[in-house]
Amino acid sequence: MNAHTEYLTFNTKTRRELINITDTVAEILSRSGIAEGFCLVGAMHITAAIWVNDEESGLKEDFMEWAERIAPFRSDYRHHRTGEDNGDAHLKRTLVHHQAILPVTAGKLDLGPWEQVFYAEFDGRRRKRVIVKIIGE
Amino acid sequence: MNAHTEYLTFNTKTRRELINITDTVAEILSRSGIAEGFCLVGAMHITAAIWVNDEESGLKEDFMEWAERIAPFRSDYRHHRTGEDNGDAHLKRTLVHHQAILPVTAGKLDLGPWEQVFYAEFDGRRRKRVIVKIIGE
Amino acid sequence: MNAHTEYLTFNTKTRRELINITDTVAEILSRSGIAEGFCLVGAMHITAAIWVNDEESGLKEDFMEWAERIAPFRSDYRHHRTGEDNGDAHLKRTLVHHQAILPVTAGKLDLGPWEQVFYAEFDGRRRKRVIVKIIGE
Repeated sequence: MNAHTEYLTFNTKTRRELINITDTVAEILSRSGIAEGFCLVGAMHITAAIWVNDEESGLKEDFMEWAERIAPFRSDYRHHRTGEDNGDAHLKRTLVHHQAILPVTAGKLDLGPWEQVFYAEFDGRRRKRVIVKIIGE
Repeated sequence: MNAHTEYLTFNTKTRRELINITDTVAEILSRSGIAEGFCLVGAMHITAAIWVNDEESGLKEDFMEWAERIAPFRSDYRHHRTGEDNGDAHLKRTLVHHQAILPVTAGKLDLGPWEQVFYAEFDGRRRKRVIVKIIGE
Repeated sequence: MNAHTEYLTFNTKTRRELINITDTVAEILSRSGIAEGFCLVGAMHITAAIWVNDEESGLKEDFMEWAERIAPFRSDYRHHRTGEDNGDAHLKRTLVHHQAILPVTAGKLDLGPWEQVFYAEFDGRRRKRVIVKIIGE
């Protein structure tokens, strides 16, 4: 079994952003030389998530609006007693989930026809990392 | 390390459906010959999910009603400008999550006493696939 | 490829509880001798989840309050016709997700700076298990 690990770094200009990282992950897979296995993509900071869905601008707006409705920005989260103001982002990460496992088959990401992999930033404007780790052979 | 990959195809009669695929996944595991490892079950289309929960008819109705409450069918999603009407299904997939990793121990799915694996269709009546990929030894 | 499997048992005093299991999982990893791979942490009972987030008391209260808001305790779930009263806990598990895959790099859990692993109990006061399974080399 082989393992290959890389880390992506993001520092978004806006607080909330969706960044399509499918091609970047595919390049990492290519560098790994792994043909059959699993590729973990995980947001290492606790106010960001990984979303596997459609590259469609309307849907991406719907997604962000929905996340805001289900886990709204509010001033009165208890977490804010620490001086933070990102309680909503912790909950949005929970809603979307912080990671995905992409199957690797015949040297490629074995995704469905419209599956794209997004880094979902909910509290940006600071340096944050994503782990991409592939195990297999 | 060995890998075994199969694809299931669904074409449900109704728009929303829960299909228990536990036995089907167990048969695939059996064909793989893998005794120790991980089994990924992933909905490859972006309007379906995988749910690991109880085979109980009341709960399954509660689940669908809850998904509808949290990510309701609406006509005014921005995604619908593309001609689609399934914006809710993209969000329901996000809520439930599109995949699960089932542990494999001693040649069996290592599930809890009531854990069953469901394909959760939120926009059916079309041909859609699920990947089942097992890695291990 | 090697595999190492252990099971944790919980029997919480209260119905809803968050238990930080990061150190316990790290000890299991240490016993496994695996340096590169994936560590699955999964709640085997269908009314509990795994949450990877911050060890901060205010946030943990926010999290539980949020889960209650999105998947509230109610008497009228259809699931309760079975005699159970934990329909909300099944939905809370769905919201949070029942498992996480922790990357293992250089013999350590490869977590972000504030990532901690929690067992999220939503229907405690009974004996319940969590699987920790590591595969790798």
